[in-house]
Amino acid sequence: MAEYKVPLKEMSFLLYEVFKADDMWQKLPKLAEQVDKETAQAILQECAKIAEQELDPIARQGDEIGVSFKDGVVTTAPGYKEAFNTYAEGGWTALGGDVNYGGMGMPKMLTAMHEEMLCSADISFALYPVLTAGAALSLAKHGSDELKERYLTRMYAGDWSASMCLTESHSGSDLGIIRTKAIPQDDGSYSITGNKIFITGGEHDLTENIVHLVLAKLPDAPAGPRGISLFLVPKFNVNDDETLGEYNNVSCGSIEHKMGIHASATCVMNFDDSKGFLIGELNKGLACMFTMMNFERIGVGIQGLSAAVRSYQNALEYAKDRLQGRALDSKTNGVKNPDQEADSIMVHGDVRRMLLNMKALNEGSRALSSYISMQLDYATYAEGEEQVKGETLAALMTPIAKAFFTDLGFENTVAGQQVFGGHGYIREWGQEQLVRDARITQIYEGTNGIQAMDLLMRKVAGSKGAMLKVFTDEVNTFIESCSHDQAMSEFITPLAAAVTDLTELTTDLLSKSQDDINELGASANDYLHVFGYTAMAFVWAKMAQVSLSQQQNNGESGEDFYQSKVHTARYFFTRLLPRRLSLIASAKSGCECLFAIDDELF
Amino acid sequence: MAEYKVPLKEMSFLLYEVFKADDMWQKLPKLAEQVDKETAQAILQECAKIAEQELDPIARQGDEIGVSFKDGVVTTAPGYKEAFNTYAEGGWTALGGDVNYGGMGMPKMLTAMHEEMLCSADISFALYPVLTAGAALSLAKHGSDELKERYLTRMYAGDWSASMCLTESHSGSDLGIIRTKAIPQDDGSYSITGNKIFITGGEHDLTENIVHLVLAKLPDAPAGPRGISLFLVPKFNVNDDETLGEYNNVSCGSIEHKMGIHASATCVMNFDDSKGFLIGELNKGLACMFTMMNFERIGVGIQGLSAAVRSYQNALEYAKDRLQGRALDSKTNGVKNPDQEADSIMVHGDVRRMLLNMKALNEGSRALSSYISMQLDYATYAEGEEQVKGETLAALMTPIAKAFFTDLGFENTVAGQQVFGGHGYIREWGQEQLVRDARITQIYEGTNGIQAMDLLMRKVAGSKGAMLKVFTDEVNTFIESCSHDQAMSEFITPLAAAVTDLTELTTDLLSKSQDDINELGASANDYLHVFGYTAMAFVWAKMAQVSLSQQQNNGESGEDFYQSKVHTARYFFTRLLPRRLSLIASAKSGCECLFAIDDELF
Repeated sequence: MAEYKVPLKEMSFLLYEVFKADDMWQKLPKLAEQVDKETAQAILQECAKIAEQELDPIARQGDEIGVSFKDGVVTTAPGYKEAFNTYAEGGWTALGGDVNYGGMGMPKMLTAMHEEMLCSADISFALYPVLTAGAALSLAKHGSDELKERYLTRMYAGDWSASMCLTESHSGSDLGIIRTKAIPQDDGSYSITGNKIFITGGEHDLTENIVHLVLAKLPDAPAGPRGISLFLVPKFNVNDDETLGEYNNVSCGSIEHKMGIHASATCVMNFDDSKGFLIGELNKGLACMFTMMNFERIGVGIQGLSAAVRSYQNALEYAKDRLQGRALDSKTNGVKNPDQEADSIMVHGDVRRMLLNMKALNEGSRALSSYISMQLDYATYAEGEEQVKGETLAALMTPIAKAFFTDLGFENTVAGQQVFGGHGYIREWGQEQLVRDARITQIYEGTNGIQAMDLLMRKVAGSKGAMLKVFTDEVNTFIESCSHDQAMSEFITPLAAAVTDLTELTTDLLSKSQDDINELGASANDYLHVFGYTAMAFVWAKMAQVSLSQQQNNGESGEDFYQSKVHTARYFFTRLLPRRLSLIASAKSGCECLFAIDDELF
Repeated sequence: MAEYKVPLKEMSFLLYEVFKADDMWQKLPKLAEQVDKETAQAILQECAKIAEQELDPIARQGDEIGVSFKDGVVTTAPGYKEAFNTYAEGGWTALGGDVNYGGMGMPKMLTAMHEEMLCSADISFALYPVLTAGAALSLAKHGSDELKERYLTRMYAGDWSASMCLTESHSGSDLGIIRTKAIPQDDGSYSITGNKIFITGGEHDLTENIVHLVLAKLPDAPAGPRGISLFLVPKFNVNDDETLGEYNNVSCGSIEHKMGIHASATCVMNFDDSKGFLIGELNKGLACMFTMMNFERIGVGIQGLSAAVRSYQNALEYAKDRLQGRALDSKTNGVKNPDQEADSIMVHGDVRRMLLNMKALNEGSRALSSYISMQLDYATYAEGEEQVKGETLAALMTPIAKAFFTDLGFENTVAGQQVFGGHGYIREWGQEQLVRDARITQIYEGTNGIQAMDLLMRKVAGSKGAMLKVFTDEVNTFIESCSHDQAMSEFITPLAAAVTDLTELTTDLLSKSQDDINELGASANDYLHVFGYTAMAFVWAKMAQVSLSQQQNNGESGEDFYQSKVHTARYFFTRLLPRRLSLIASAKSGCECLFAIDDELF
């Protein structure tokens, strides 16, 4: 397997040339204090070293050996504890954290790239710090000062990790019917009792304490999602002098044996009269969770992308080395590799198709991820209209980031495996591990079907199309700005058609849903993908614009880079954007064919 | 996991109602001796028992324990030897075999269904007898009477198994550059020396002898594929009295650790001055292999379908049992399951979409598999024009069966896993095993990319469109025959459009390929899928026609079955056939965007 190389040049291109993040950082006072281009570059370069040198080498072994469970004790795979210590000592656990409690306060645009690197190197490892960072976000936003002083500081320091305890075996995605109970105690704390499943990092040996954020219901809570509260439940209670106190009856009942992410502990967690502390208001636990949700869900999208990036690097190296067959045009154009008994498989159109699919979709996903992360930064650090717009776009596009990137990520790990032929199916090459690891990203943190409903029903229909309009206005403004740029017309013409069709499809679905709400459920998945390809066309057009202009301006060392970008943009518009045609036809076909058939006839 | 239930009703429907196989069997003298409807039904029912009762129970354990390798000895998973003995004692190893050597001579339409059952129950187990049956086909067609008497009889009896030894580590799909050597000996035999990889069932403990069919080259053979010969190389030599003689220096060097099919031994095989016997003519080994190729490749297609069938059964049972959330229309139409805290997830449009995708594509694949198998039966047992037509259609559509069914099969195992949510990712439910097992079917027996080239370049372009015309003529005749059937118009109109577009696309690609042969490589994958959906529309229209007419004719017990068929046909035409639109757009977009970008810019 190829050694992982962090695509730093791609990241700088997006940050400074396409999205001009450094201008934004300068402009927003809260960010200007923390970050500038120089700091950002140093962070990315140092993080790349961790990913390439510390995490990449332990990933295969982590898959083969996995986590082990005995008598309630979870032991991580060899090398994980050392890697985690190196990671924490480097200060990476504080990267996106609140500066008032020891965090570094870096913007999401940077932490997103940091997550990509970690996950390309080893998704299983990454989940421990990434989940902790997610829990820290909720705590930072909704926790009391006392809780933050006591717990958040130690989480940022890398001393303690965290887990999110939502799912219960009977309820799955339907959090409204969870059964974990929280009984108020005289000292203001709560006694938490219940069982949670699928808890990533619920138990392990990387840190001395684990901070669980647990959804539970008070005995008199309203039924459904409006009766859920969020509690902080530590594995070990913490004494007033900040030393660890007594065991809090938080136990791991077992770990799951899974298709992939073998080195990530997926735990059944049992809480038995465990001491918990309320985060935020009673019965508003879901709202506290949603604070982190947009960050986490983009993060999961990035996991899908990460696996595909790794798969592409491996597949490209393999394709260049592998000699098999001759080019189709050998007879007319001469044999390409006459000194060898065969050409490299790069000569075959179908191999190029798979590689270019991966390249175009990966680079498109990374660009779109940067765009959405930028909106989250506006939502967090800007004010007034700019803040509202950022918040709107981030909320609108988060389900796309989660579901679209992971669907494409899985597709692309499979494509990278296919390039290897039979060797892709063999464990030692590592390509099949990427497929198995990537697969979970379409499922957890809200299945992609749930994301599609979040997009179409909650966001688009819920705002009567207003949220969508914020996005299409932005795209249409960009399109108009290119109207006199002849070189851009090959990208702008299909982009304009895609936006028009998306708007028209939205109107059609929202109108039909007035008569039958099932229209939304029936078309949500297609709709999300139509939106995804359209949004990706937008960022590809932006990348093409920058690259064309760089090509005109200079003939320096970056030329190959920009030439590659323009070619890849062209490939996206020619071969991939047409995927929307079938999706639109399917989305428009109505819900009758889904619902007219009785359950018994399946 | 649901217990596997063989879809016998579906199979009878295809055999006797849609394709009228019993009429065909009666009509062809060579088949009429072997099979009639009564025999066929008895075979399917008995085979179903084996699949459900003997193979289904060992599949999960086979995946967890897998095959083991020590000091050259390969040991299969617990229960495999017993299951193989039961299978062989039942006579199933002889099912499709030459009647002159102890075979039962059953048509491919039946053996295809037999293969589906085996593979739905346990692909890993099925590979041992299925590969043996494939090797037997080559031997029966090209072997000398002496070889057949000595080896074929024992293979049909289930005493000995077989392997196909093609791939070498440096050459992969490019058989022209293999290095295994065959040196002629004074006794008319050959000394075979070389190394083969990825040999399914190359070594195991199920049978006392293993018959290897090995591709090798004589020292003075022409370069490339025209210098390849086929040899029979037994693991143990066979004495004149048919007892096993001395060891033939055929050794297993190691087994592969793979993503899936853990209970199937994938071996590195070493031949060291091993005694081999020529099959067919010198330097015509590839032609001997191609005899079995059409049968084998359909078989691999069926493996993809089989995993998806199993996945659908499991997912449907799970979806009906799993309570989560409420239907979107609960407010307007009332709560569907008021006695429980949630509805079954069958109420959600996206769950129905996934299930109906699986149902429509699985039933469509099985129907198309039956259609292609029927052509193989015409090719084998008919005479004159009927034989030629069958041979043409079978050759044309075999790559579609292999690649299209396995691409859809993989898609559908992934969909079935998605229905399970997080539980789909956990090993104990078995859904993720189906994904891992199905994945190999897109790779082995010629990758799906190679199948696409076989279809578009060798078959369609190679015959200048003549082979395609045999198919489109058949479809157009069917379309015309329905022209006065009003009830069929919802299926016939889109089918006619699909056939027209396929013809037009073919003309376009063949014309462009005159200028640049790379057009074929660039569009082959899209083309194969366009053809696949069109062919599937043809068989779905046929199924709809039969079902509509049965609904009109009677209101008896079969009514639900036919109603379900008509609904599913409608679903296919409404939601799935439009997939061809994007594929056509991509296929027509030309090869420039694939080849204009230099390898260094990837």
